[in-house]
Amino acid sequence: MRQAFSPKSPRLRRHCEGVAATAQALAPAFGLDPERAWLAGWLHDCAKELSRRASLRLLGPAGLDAGERALPALWHAPLGALLARQRHGVTDRAILAAIRWHSTGRAGMAALERLLFLCDYIEPTRDFPGLKALRKLAQEDAERAFEEVAALKLAHLVAQRRTVHPRSLALYNSLLKKAA
Amino acid sequence: MRQAFSPKSPRLRRHCEGVAATAQALAPAFGLDPERAWLAGWLHDCAKELSRRASLRLLGPAGLDAGERALPALWHAPLGALLARQRHGVTDRAILAAIRWHSTGRAGMAALERLLFLCDYIEPTRDFPGLKALRKLAQEDAERAFEEVAALKLAHLVAQRRTVHPRSLALYNSLLKKAA
Repeated sequence: MRQAFSPKSPRLRRHCEGVAATAQALAPAFGLDPERAWLAGWLHDCAKELSRRASLRLLGPAGLDAGERALPALWHAPLGALLARQRHGVTDRAILAAIRWHSTGRAGMAALERLLFLCDYIEPTRDFPGLKALRKLAQEDAERAFEEVAALKLAHLVAQRRTVHPRSLALYNSLLKKAA
Repeated sequence: MRQAFSPKSPRLRRHCEGVAATAQALAPAFGLDPERAWLAGWLHDCAKELSRRASLRLLGPAGLDAGERALPALWHAPLGALLARQRHGVTDRAILAAIRWHSTGRAGMAALERLLFLCDYIEPTRDFPGLKALRKLAQEDAERAFEEVAALKLAHLVAQRRTVHPRSLALYNSLLKKAA
């Protein structure tokens, strides 16, 4: 049976609302339908409040690579795609892929994947140095803003001495090749 | 016939002298012989002045992975190991490996590899914000300074929007796991 997604944490609710609204507004810049963009944004963190135990049970042996398995912070992305389909009735493969890859990114992201990846980082509840300029860039050149986010996520993780998934590096490197 | 290494560029000469002297001084912190450390430092950039044409001829089809082949700035490391052996008569495998991996690094580096990787970054002709503190750390805890360099090299490359070899990320990630 199809259930609506309803975050328990007010903070997560505000974040999901922010990503959904930002994605809806920026959808045309990626040639996308605002309604689909809104839904991807609203649901992207739908697995964020699962317990570790429930996550492990749902994940099963498949669905994660070795790099992801060691990083519980990344589990909500593949699990989100799973819940969006099984619990919230999403059949749109582009939306499911956008949720699947929203955390690490990957080389060769589709338009809705790029849009969600960007909006997750610049939505109204976020706050970090340079964000104002990045939001301005997103209005003027959404694709370049997406490329900036790929580099900034990497830079932020390294500055915090946190593990970087190889897919995130592959995304970053692939965009440099594109720019060269 | 065995030839001495003699850099043409005064800047490269000062850099090689700096790395050699720093490696000699810090060798005991890694349990290493200062003379071997000096030689690794002196020779590590011995392929840096090869032309692109000579590099490609020497490299041949083997010796580089796909990621390296696309990045000429990395060629002097495998080529340096080759020249150190063929031209400068080095047979010490630990020295050759230290030269081979000094630019990208790799997960699971041996002591001499770690020492050279560190000294290449902190030798006297280098200059970047935070270097003074890093040199101090190298005196007090050389292994931690090496780990810092692995993170800083990554951060500097991303800040300059330059390509990062996956091996450099693997090194960085492996050291975080060690620290945790």
